[in-house]
Amino acid sequence: MGSLPEIRSEGTLIKPLDPEEFRKQGHLVIDFLADYYKNVDKYPVRSQVEPGYLKTRLPDSAPTNPEPIEEILRDVQKDIVPGLTHWQSPNYFAYFPSSGSIAGFLGEMLSTGFNVVGFNWMSSPAATELESIVMDWLGKMLQLPSEFLFSGGGGGVLQGTTCEAILCTMVAARDQMLRKIGRENINKLVVYGSDQTHSALQKAAQIAGINPDNFRAVSTSRDTAFGLTAEALRAQIESDVESGLVPLFLCATIGTTSSTAVDPLTPLCAVAKELGIWVHVDAAYAGSACICPEYRHFLDGVENADSFSFNAHKWFLTTLDCCCLWVKNPSALVKALSTYPEYLRNKASDTKQVIDYKDWQITLSRRFRSLKLWLVLRSYGVANLRKFLRSHIKMAKNFQGLIGTDKRFEVVVPRNFATVCFRISPIEIGGNQQMNVSKEEATNNVNAKLLEIINESGKIYMTHAVVGGVYVMRFAVGASLTENRHVNLAWNIVQEHANALLNTL
Amino acid sequence: MGSLPEIRSEGTLIKPLDPEEFRKQGHLVIDFLADYYKNVDKYPVRSQVEPGYLKTRLPDSAPTNPEPIEEILRDVQKDIVPGLTHWQSPNYFAYFPSSGSIAGFLGEMLSTGFNVVGFNWMSSPAATELESIVMDWLGKMLQLPSEFLFSGGGGGVLQGTTCEAILCTMVAARDQMLRKIGRENINKLVVYGSDQTHSALQKAAQIAGINPDNFRAVSTSRDTAFGLTAEALRAQIESDVESGLVPLFLCATIGTTSSTAVDPLTPLCAVAKELGIWVHVDAAYAGSACICPEYRHFLDGVENADSFSFNAHKWFLTTLDCCCLWVKNPSALVKALSTYPEYLRNKASDTKQVIDYKDWQITLSRRFRSLKLWLVLRSYGVANLRKFLRSHIKMAKNFQGLIGTDKRFEVVVPRNFATVCFRISPIEIGGNQQMNVSKEEATNNVNAKLLEIINESGKIYMTHAVVGGVYVMRFAVGASLTENRHVNLAWNIVQEHANALLNTL
Repeated sequence: MGSLPEIRSEGTLIKPLDPEEFRKQGHLVIDFLADYYKNVDKYPVRSQVEPGYLKTRLPDSAPTNPEPIEEILRDVQKDIVPGLTHWQSPNYFAYFPSSGSIAGFLGEMLSTGFNVVGFNWMSSPAATELESIVMDWLGKMLQLPSEFLFSGGGGGVLQGTTCEAILCTMVAARDQMLRKIGRENINKLVVYGSDQTHSALQKAAQIAGINPDNFRAVSTSRDTAFGLTAEALRAQIESDVESGLVPLFLCATIGTTSSTAVDPLTPLCAVAKELGIWVHVDAAYAGSACICPEYRHFLDGVENADSFSFNAHKWFLTTLDCCCLWVKNPSALVKALSTYPEYLRNKASDTKQVIDYKDWQITLSRRFRSLKLWLVLRSYGVANLRKFLRSHIKMAKNFQGLIGTDKRFEVVVPRNFATVCFRISPIEIGGNQQMNVSKEEATNNVNAKLLEIINESGKIYMTHAVVGGVYVMRFAVGASLTENRHVNLAWNIVQEHANALLNTL
Repeated sequence: MGSLPEIRSEGTLIKPLDPEEFRKQGHLVIDFLADYYKNVDKYPVRSQVEPGYLKTRLPDSAPTNPEPIEEILRDVQKDIVPGLTHWQSPNYFAYFPSSGSIAGFLGEMLSTGFNVVGFNWMSSPAATELESIVMDWLGKMLQLPSEFLFSGGGGGVLQGTTCEAILCTMVAARDQMLRKIGRENINKLVVYGSDQTHSALQKAAQIAGINPDNFRAVSTSRDTAFGLTAEALRAQIESDVESGLVPLFLCATIGTTSSTAVDPLTPLCAVAKELGIWVHVDAAYAGSACICPEYRHFLDGVENADSFSFNAHKWFLTTLDCCCLWVKNPSALVKALSTYPEYLRNKASDTKQVIDYKDWQITLSRRFRSLKLWLVLRSYGVANLRKFLRSHIKMAKNFQGLIGTDKRFEVVVPRNFATVCFRISPIEIGGNQQMNVSKEEATNNVNAKLLEIINESGKIYMTHAVVGGVYVMRFAVGASLTENRHVNLAWNIVQEHANALLNTL
């Protein structure tokens, strides 16, 4: 290989954690971000760049020599910010929110600053213990039955996202079942959701090796506001059992992605429990609202489920990523996900008196996420958090009211939380281009067109869904900077673009 | 539910992203962390708390009312810091490093501050495009064959950890194989590693639904410095094929966890390729060093592998988590991991001209991790990064030299990188308590005892491994604050405790 002295002599010895340099550069970036929040409402909400824009702006390879932070921040402003879709903009109403907050940000800073790898208790006891404590706090705020709390024999864990929560619980359920019926029957296992269930369920089933033929997206309809009915589930299960298949796992949703529909937990769990199906409750979006007593009824029946999760990074101010998962039977998780190689052996783990969270999740290494949750809960307090969530719901109600003032529009499904699904109502549309499509298709096309021109304007950003064949615009309130005036403005923008569009038809 | 007016009236409406409050509190936490780095060498490296310590210090439930950040930071100092194992201490030599840096920290701040959810291109084009660009930069630094780069038809993606990288590639390999041989043969698939391979492989196989009977940890020995030999692999594969099984996946390691052993890629790939086995190269720890030309030879043969990954959060200054994965055939990943529900449909994805990274990983939501990597590469430059990695290797060489000056100790396996595996050499030990154990067992016990008293001292922290039945202490240099003086001090501490211990025997 040779000693390559000409390369070895290059470069200076960096001090990557010099405290005073850290202080200086850290303050610079805090100011950069404070200014970003001050101006975020001025950017087009949905990025307006074209595919490949960044390749033309950046060099082909990494620099040999260091560049100063001031120059890098100028490039962030110049090259990165235009390529952002501004999820923190007060005019962001797309998908579901990704709710940032000062407390969540500070928690993330502390976690990144300590930079501990909390795979087991010993590797940083505070990381494990704070997580267990805060998950019990949060479980109590949600009035989860005590079987889900550590204090009642269950327990909570922070995952990155719902995809991981579903995958981990499905693997736990799968292995529990295979221990009973034999591994040779893996291709008989069936996973259930509705046609409204998040794609995370299908993806988890793919990863866990469930036969793709055995993934059931049971139909829902407008009659039940796109909630999964116990009758439909039972019919599907009975047909599967008759075919010699083995029902394994049901994912019920509180607040579906398309229309925030709610699956009725009590009757669904009753059906599932007859056959020993593991029930996971995915409240990724709507779980946050359930800390308000007047919304808690949406979780009624969770006491019969096996696991429950919600994303604190969606609508609970913790910043991405932070998914809260509780299980009644941690040992099922641990049996499926545990490994204990020699190089991780330690006295504390050997006693089995401590939690090693590596055995509750997919990865070994894990970040100290509970700091974020702890800071959010302490910085705001439960009363303010409830009030904040209610303010979003009130804004959504306001938007719904505004829709009601304009006969051209309709709300398509009942609003449960802070998301409104609406559209331009079916209309007769003239012109050649519409001659070969049905009225419903034409209406869908008009709504899709309207949404696109609204989003192209950059003034607000919404996304769409199709429920029961109906194309709807989704107006999801929840960005941390959104105030009622932004909602009123958004409605004006919708109307203006509708005026322009409908005039051209 | 009723309107619960007495609850509704509680709380004030918070402003979770007020820019000036963000600025004020952000500066406070930067100063808190700068002071932490200034004092981190004064804390016991391994936390000295007892299980359950935190429960006695924190309340049973979340506060109703907000608490000021100053009070929260006082509690972080008082209650959390004592429960940390200080991975950023210059006296941290345990496991592998979790290397923090100013640039990595600032990148994480920007990512958290923007808080975009980059599941597809449209959701924030900059997040996708910067990742592709930086992965090509890094691939070139590692001299990966062009087939692994976007510019050559392959591509790179940032995962959280190696566990995810292995799981994703295994699922891609599994589905590719099942499409050929039929899903009914899933229980015949066999996964290969060595007895030194990281537990991530076994865990990935468990999650992916591989029959646990078909997980092969092929034996290694001291003769080959615990590298997996092509002969041993071939013998195992031939025996499996004879039994009607189907070889699927091989994980070869560059720098094993126990002793930084290196599996020889060229002969291993030759064996694997005969049978169409997917070869993943896990260079989680040692990949970083391979940006230095004089260490690149450890990757020779990677051109015949299917995928390659290393953890930039281990020894490449990006803070947890940041695992870099490259694949030659992205479409195999995408086929296994893709979902495309209506609510995510968009024009850009429909054109298939953009990358939607959600289809390259387990989860849908993903953080803007490439900012960290970009900031590290630009802030330090390639020349300084090489020099920095070499400085750690030089410190490890120094430690090895110090061991050589003390006849009571020995280096157990050849040092490849910046980790030294050593022990007190086998000795005759008197005393009743040793009468019923072999010399080798007694030596292991003495070394375990020595490691425990060293770690209890809090002055340095090392961890152990057992290779070929030999208990070794692992001295892993790589914490960002470590200088040669800390290594010299560490050796003094080892000697002092050895003096004390050996005197009692």
